[in-house]
Amino acid sequence: MPPPIHFWFEFASTYSYLSAWRVESEARARGIEVVWEPFLLAPIFGAQGWKDSPFNLYPVKGRYMWRDMERLTAALELPFMRPTKFPRNGLLAARVCCAAAKEPWLPDFVRAVYRANFADDREISTPEVVGSLLAAQGVSADEWLERAALPETKQRLREQTERAIAKGIFGAPSFTVGDELFWGNDRLTQALDFACAGS
Amino acid sequence: MPPPIHFWFEFASTYSYLSAWRVESEARARGIEVVWEPFLLAPIFGAQGWKDSPFNLYPVKGRYMWRDMERLTAALELPFMRPTKFPRNGLLAARVCCAAAKEPWLPDFVRAVYRANFADDREISTPEVVGSLLAAQGVSADEWLERAALPETKQRLREQTERAIAKGIFGAPSFTVGDELFWGNDRLTQALDFACAGS
Repeated sequence: MPPPIHFWFEFASTYSYLSAWRVESEARARGIEVVWEPFLLAPIFGAQGWKDSPFNLYPVKGRYMWRDMERLTAALELPFMRPTKFPRNGLLAARVCCAAAKEPWLPDFVRAVYRANFADDREISTPEVVGSLLAAQGVSADEWLERAALPETKQRLREQTERAIAKGIFGAPSFTVGDELFWGNDRLTQALDFACAGS
Repeated sequence: MPPPIHFWFEFASTYSYLSAWRVESEARARGIEVVWEPFLLAPIFGAQGWKDSPFNLYPVKGRYMWRDMERLTAALELPFMRPTKFPRNGLLAARVCCAAAKEPWLPDFVRAVYRANFADDREISTPEVVGSLLAAQGVSADEWLERAALPETKQRLREQTERAIAKGIFGAPSFTVGDELFWGNDRLTQALDFACAGS
């Protein structure tokens, strides 16, 4: 059995949308399990002096990224619309993911949050939007929003970000297989190759 | 006939080494002409407040890049050794490229400079090393070092960097097909696809 691939995602990250869409089917096709790892980039970016997305801090790079996303989503036939606000705060949705780590609907919920942000231009930071995406999974929005607000859930997300830093993660999406780190949607295939080679 | 692909390279850039190796054979296989476009990143990085390579400014990202280069060069079976000095100043070599823009040995010279820097750990900023790489192409080192030092050659390199900025380029390697920009060795295939689709 190949080792699992850990998929580190942040809801504000455009390129994580692509990987959230691809990772499960591509891993499954090769018999590899996916471990979904929510974390936050803000503390990591903040530690290197960035108080905003690098795509906003460096507008030339930002312009390129939006065009690149247009091309990549078109190639994947993924719905995409540049959101009217960027980045959006993914804290609440990430906490839901921490609370729901073992739920079978987690991957669908993650994809739904990305789609809400990057295709439907919805404000994913609010309990209303997150709640509606939970309800669409057939679970109780109130129950999961309550669990997301528990001190132990908040602590779990802080620990996730600490674990990401300990792995050498500096951006999203990232993939880890054991201690091997792969950064960016462009490295998903290599990460899966690495998992297969190591099995 | 598909339009040409413009390959924008900077000798200090690690990932440009990979593209310098790949671009000609992959473009030729698809009937696409390559236009070799030397430029300098220092003025572009400087304008956004970076006085060193981002891989030095952000050591966590730098650590990852060196590991990523190890993996990518191994997959391409390219010789690679992390140089003892990074980044090295590619100004002289870039000026030679501007002077020799129409010479048939230019692509081989470019690859030789990258190999000297990233496989043989040689100080590519010096006339001695650049001269020896010119001599290895069977041309006169003295003659081309002289041409590299001409005011019109220096001016041509400044204009190259201005052209890069006008194209929206913010890193290396980059590829352009008409006004369409692709950033990074990871986008070479998409750039070639784009050229073919537009033909």
